Amino acid sequence: MNRKLKMGMVGGGKDAFIGAVHRIAANMDGLIELACGSLSISPEMAIESGKMLFLPDDRIYTKYEDMIKAESKLPAGQRMDFVTIVTPNFAHFAPAMMALDHGFHVVIEKPMTFTLDEAKQLKKKVDETGLQLCLTHTYSGYPMVKQARAMVQGGVFGKIRKVYVEYPQGWLSKLSEREGNAQAAWRTDPKKSGKSGCMGDIGTHAAHLTEYITGLQITHMCADLNIMVEGRILDDDGNVLLKFDNGAAGVLMASQVAAGEENALKIRIYGERGGLEWAQHEPNTLIVKWLDQPTQILRAGGNYTGVLSSFATHNCRTPGGHPEGYLEAFGNIYRNFALTLSAHIDGVQPSKEMLDFPRVDEGVRGMAFIDNVVKSSASKEKWTLFEV
Amino acid sequence: MNRKLKMGMVGGGKDAFIGAVHRIAANMDGLIELACGSLSISPEMAIESGKMLFLPDDRIYTKYEDMIKAESKLPAGQRMDFVTIVTPNFAHFAPAMMALDHGFHVVIEKPMTFTLDEAKQLKKKVDETGLQLCLTHTYSGYPMVKQARAMVQGGVFGKIRKVYVEYPQGWLSKLSEREGNAQAAWRTDPKKSGKSGCMGDIGTHAAHLTEYITGLQITHMCADLNIMVEGRILDDDGNVLLKFDNGAAGVLMASQVAAGEENALKIRIYGERGGLEWAQHEPNTLIVKWLDQPTQILRAGGNYTGVLSSFATHNCRTPGGHPEGYLEAFGNIYRNFALTLSAHIDGVQPSKEMLDFPRVDEGVRGMAFIDNVVKSSASKEKWTLFEV
Amino acid sequence: MNRKLKMGMVGGGKDAFIGAVHRIAANMDGLIELACGSLSISPEMAIESGKMLFLPDDRIYTKYEDMIKAESKLPAGQRMDFVTIVTPNFAHFAPAMMALDHGFHVVIEKPMTFTLDEAKQLKKKVDETGLQLCLTHTYSGYPMVKQARAMVQGGVFGKIRKVYVEYPQGWLSKLSEREGNAQAAWRTDPKKSGKSGCMGDIGTHAAHLTEYITGLQITHMCADLNIMVEGRILDDDGNVLLKFDNGAAGVLMASQVAAGEENALKIRIYGERGGLEWAQHEPNTLIVKWLDQPTQILRAGGNYTGVLSSFATHNCRTPGGHPEGYLEAFGNIYRNFALTLSAHIDGVQPSKEMLDFPRVDEGVRGMAFIDNVVKSSASKEKWTLFEV
Amino acid sequence: MNRKLKMGMVGGGKDAFIGAVHRIAANMDGLIELACGSLSISPEMAIESGKMLFLPDDRIYTKYEDMIKAESKLPAGQRMDFVTIVTPNFAHFAPAMMALDHGFHVVIEKPMTFTLDEAKQLKKKVDETGLQLCLTHTYSGYPMVKQARAMVQGGVFGKIRKVYVEYPQGWLSKLSEREGNAQAAWRTDPKKSGKSGCMGDIGTHAAHLTEYITGLQITHMCADLNIMVEGRILDDDGNVLLKFDNGAAGVLMASQVAAGEENALKIRIYGERGGLEWAQHEPNTLIVKWLDQPTQILRAGGNYTGVLSSFATHNCRTPGGHPEGYLEAFGNIYRNFALTLSAHIDGVQPSKEMLDFPRVDEGVRGMAFIDNVVKSSASKEKWTLFEV
Repeated sequence: MNRKLKMGMVGGGKDAFIGAVHRIAANMDGLIELACGSLSISPEMAIESGKMLFLPDDRIYTKYEDMIKAESKLPAGQRMDFVTIVTPNFAHFAPAMMALDHGFHVVIEKPMTFTLDEAKQLKKKVDETGLQLCLTHTYSGYPMVKQARAMVQGGVFGKIRKVYVEYPQGWLSKLSEREGNAQAAWRTDPKKSGKSGCMGDIGTHAAHLTEYITGLQITHMCADLNIMVEGRILDDDGNVLLKFDNGAAGVLMASQVAAGEENALKIRIYGERGGLEWAQHEPNTLIVKWLDQPTQILRAGGNYTGVLSSFATHNCRTPGGHPEGYLEAFGNIYRNFALTLSAHIDGVQPSKEMLDFPRVDEGVRGMAFIDNVVKSSASKEKWTLFEV
Repeated sequence: MNRKLKMGMVGGGKDAFIGAVHRIAANMDGLIELACGSLSISPEMAIESGKMLFLPDDRIYTKYEDMIKAESKLPAGQRMDFVTIVTPNFAHFAPAMMALDHGFHVVIEKPMTFTLDEAKQLKKKVDETGLQLCLTHTYSGYPMVKQARAMVQGGVFGKIRKVYVEYPQGWLSKLSEREGNAQAAWRTDPKKSGKSGCMGDIGTHAAHLTEYITGLQITHMCADLNIMVEGRILDDDGNVLLKFDNGAAGVLMASQVAAGEENALKIRIYGERGGLEWAQHEPNTLIVKWLDQPTQILRAGGNYTGVLSSFATHNCRTPGGHPEGYLEAFGNIYRNFALTLSAHIDGVQPSKEMLDFPRVDEGVRGMAFIDNVVKSSASKEKWTLFEV
Repeated sequence: MNRKLKMGMVGGGKDAFIGAVHRIAANMDGLIELACGSLSISPEMAIESGKMLFLPDDRIYTKYEDMIKAESKLPAGQRMDFVTIVTPNFAHFAPAMMALDHGFHVVIEKPMTFTLDEAKQLKKKVDETGLQLCLTHTYSGYPMVKQARAMVQGGVFGKIRKVYVEYPQGWLSKLSEREGNAQAAWRTDPKKSGKSGCMGDIGTHAAHLTEYITGLQITHMCADLNIMVEGRILDDDGNVLLKFDNGAAGVLMASQVAAGEENALKIRIYGERGGLEWAQHEPNTLIVKWLDQPTQILRAGGNYTGVLSSFATHNCRTPGGHPEGYLEAFGNIYRNFALTLSAHIDGVQPSKEMLDFPRVDEGVRGMAFIDNVVKSSASKEKWTLFEV
Repeated sequence: MNRKLKMGMVGGGKDAFIGAVHRIAANMDGLIELACGSLSISPEMAIESGKMLFLPDDRIYTKYEDMIKAESKLPAGQRMDFVTIVTPNFAHFAPAMMALDHGFHVVIEKPMTFTLDEAKQLKKKVDETGLQLCLTHTYSGYPMVKQARAMVQGGVFGKIRKVYVEYPQGWLSKLSEREGNAQAAWRTDPKKSGKSGCMGDIGTHAAHLTEYITGLQITHMCADLNIMVEGRILDDDGNVLLKFDNGAAGVLMASQVAAGEENALKIRIYGERGGLEWAQHEPNTLIVKWLDQPTQILRAGGNYTGVLSSFATHNCRTPGGHPEGYLEAFGNIYRNFALTLSAHIDGVQPSKEMLDFPRVDEGVRGMAFIDNVVKSSASKEKWTLFEV
């Protein structure tokens, strides 16, 4: 590859949160450059944001449809290579479909779509086109999450029996959606966010992380979704009992009203011979517990040959002692996606480490998680089958 | 009070675990002396254990019935003041009833009895006799648990919305009851332990801690009890969704197959304005979280007037920086029980801090918890009513 | 042994801090009973304290001289077996010498005496009489300190190169000795405390811990003692560079003006192949670091055969997961002292684990530490020789 | 500003460590683009590295002299705006002087030069030219370091009395410079690294961090530098007692033979009313301690108005709960430098937050630190004056 990949962006104008995160993640490794964008549904904001990001005037678009059409007419190497979609959930599907139809690879925020049906259509389109769809389930980009995955799926703990996964946040402890908080407003609005609030926003992360690390699939769930703040329309809290396809039991907890918590995502997994614990607040540490040996502290970039998986080391930029964080985890997803695209462009086979980024199948499963958890919560039966 | 209180002990022979813990707890503060005991169902072991503990020969008994009868004939001040019962669960009820019938106060290990019915009978007897029954729910003896209780019930966090309580252990990850582990053998045997294993042994602690701190009562539960180790008869793992009488939601997790965990009891409670976190592994610390202020670390014995409750300071023996642990928490229960008895003997009113030890009502509720959690787990309905 | 050992106490009246700690430590394991005391230089306080502790009237003394004389005339088995001295530093020597002269073993608070010369006389007396002198350097009683010692001296880390030991406290950040704080008053008064404040009180603990764990001896030091609070007479802060007899380098830091710290004693030791870290605030954990392996977390009572030294396991009362603290560490010193005395009384050889408590030689070295650190701080030369 | 700033790089070829870090830091925020480079003294490596970084062929140089000359002839807006120098220490001075002489701003790795004399010359040149020199003392880029600085210098703790700063690493525990480790080779070679190894490499970071946060200046030091690994030429360990210009005392500890440590940089500062603690391994947390209030945990991005300084919030890219790390701290230095340059280009005054990056004066002081610490270590006197 003799050039950076070119990224076009849908959404992510100057006041958005996640768009800026995507740009940092894409910039970081010098493999990708922002080439064009339709950065807001407001034309003024789209233009202002494009200028702020130093885009040339002719590649600042005010409609994503225009961008996709115009870019598709540019010569290869000059036109964008892929589209990143960072709009609210309800506005993922249409640009993603159109981008794929015009031959562009896609990066898309999670949850992948507004409905499960859209997700399935998107999967069909991806399968038909053979293009890459990368879903930014950030937490799976952390090196020690990949280490956890390698250890669990490598069988070092024996059969997995138990999973605790939790994602407590406190930021919706008040009715902030009525107090001018734009993030709160769309995320608690079923027309923009979908049929679930807390579970759609962060429960999906917890579910993805669980299946990603363990390689197990949820088969049954028993959900208790709650609205804790009076006046709110969507769930802001939920607890879910889980059964997995190997017989393991689990608990998934997510809350946006755990006042005082930031993004306290944590997962604990126990097998016959030991277990592990990983928490996003100290992401470079993986705590490994043993039935009959002292607990070990594995560190990203640690200086111990043979202990760290190639999937962990591939996703570190620095040796041990240089804490990498959320943006680097996000960057890993972009980096692996970019390395995969570049390898394809160069006609070589990407390594298995490069190919390790979340894809459309995980997006479908995430949308199914939302459907199933809402269904289970409404049911009087204890266990409901996880259906896709 | 011009003398130590005299303790008689049922069970707790030289190879028992919890009996030794009770003795350390009772000895610690110099308020109680071991005066007599029927320390084992094996006469040889009872005698050997009594000698090891320097009991005079005539106060080493081989049957608890003999002890209670003989001691009741001794003059006041010489006879035992109370009986501590540290036998396996199935053997709590009879000596407790007999002790009460003979006018002795009782200290009893949890779970209080073998069945809920026994618990109710015991409560009736306690109510009739007016004697003290102290239930050793150890964790409620920690000063920072008492601080948590004072803060939550004092309303500093506003209405409580959410409770996570968990008690993962790993010690039953193998079928140790078949490998000569005596502790494992009786605790996994329904004839000795009761109708639940994990929930009876440690789930009850988690449930008690929750109700003790919050002052809320569980009204509904949805339980998933599991047997994770093949060949085991009683549950060794369980997850329970909870509803409380104020509308709060909760999750109670207990496991004996969380390989690599010790006694990782932890509770997190969230209200409208903040929350708290306490973990038994670092018991002198209470983490207090706020919606819009930095997290605070409260420490037992901390040098900040007006922040620590008198219930916390009363239960510390040392100023900050001298970590007190499990045995001191246990000792606090004995100390408060002893101070209450002594006050009564002296004809004065015990302070509210002295009166703060677990009692027969909490024992009834603990037995009801076991019944209800087993019932709920067996049910196909999501929510079952917590009945006492 | 068919009875508890009998303890007499000098100092430790009802308002004292450390006397109460000694009693809890002595009571805890049921091996020792308080038999008599001259608990205060104030006769009223001595009597009141004795009654509060349920001592018989005829064993409440108002002068330690009376106690030692009277007790020495009682028959063996009835008279006290040993004397515990918990007066301020300046009042250690005389009762200790007199007790030894009358055939009583001695337990003594650190620093052992008021001057190095007294310490040497005491050692001579101990050597002559063959009696036991136990010095309560509490921190050496923690099981994970003993584990650290076993690992370092067992050579698992190779040659030791580096020691960091620190003991920051904040309690003397103000001129509390002028504000009615009795503890502060005597500890900052050279007539009661000796020639050093901070170094005598807590620097000695840090120095003892270092030599106890490593088995190395300080040979040279370069000290910077400070008085940070205006109006104070003795040092309240100090930093000391150290050289050890194997060529290792060290830093010893102690402060009483580290505002906001409790008793943050911590030691880190590094050798060629790894190192360890132990902190008093979480005393049940020993962090073990390796040059080329993941860090390990060793826990007191941990369920891993072959990793924990018999010196660690001997000093735990409970299995893993039941945090033991400062009082238990203190209790371990009393327990080992008591087991050693009892073995001698029974005519058997105490085990090496029982014999592991601090003694008069360590007391001499502690007093020499104070002399040397004061001398070094006053010197303009960088390195001064550690002389005993 | 309507374009990215253009960076030229001296050193940092494909196998270098710190060059890659600089590029990530510069890329991250989309304000800077790599425009040209002379990336290695090996022409082949320089060319290969340039291609790997997608530089156009005509901006890949094999000598920095060529690059500076050629770029200076390009039109403004096209030529590089500044030069980043990431060669080993001995090769900092010449390209920096030449760049300044040709009107280019400079970013330079620390230690700034090979000798103090060079540092002074460089300062003179910077002063003469009025150009910006940015010194990448990374740790000062962390938001919670800036928060610490704002609190300490804002006086919330009263007069500062005590500083402990430490930087233990373990990576030079063996004679790795003889085992093919290129990083170890140049860093332990006095011809490339300078007159100190450990103190030059990491002691300077600790010293800078201390003066940066406290605003105090070291006036006297008493140093003990050691070579712990036989065969090594430069110090690999050192302990330094410090005196500051306000009378505070300090200890600076740095080691490269603390086996098992990563980059465990930590600073603790105590004043009359409280203190703080920051550790690089968990950089988003600032622990704030109070004499008479509970400890507080301040978090980068925390949701508490009025507590976090604008210097902290300006240097966060994400809200609380998204851990930012070493690369972001590095990126903050580049971002502030870029914002300052851009403001100047736009003719506006940079904010005080933008201007907050390390400069040539700190580079001079860092070189003086090396000189002074080596001098002190060689002296037999306890205290040596810190001379610049």
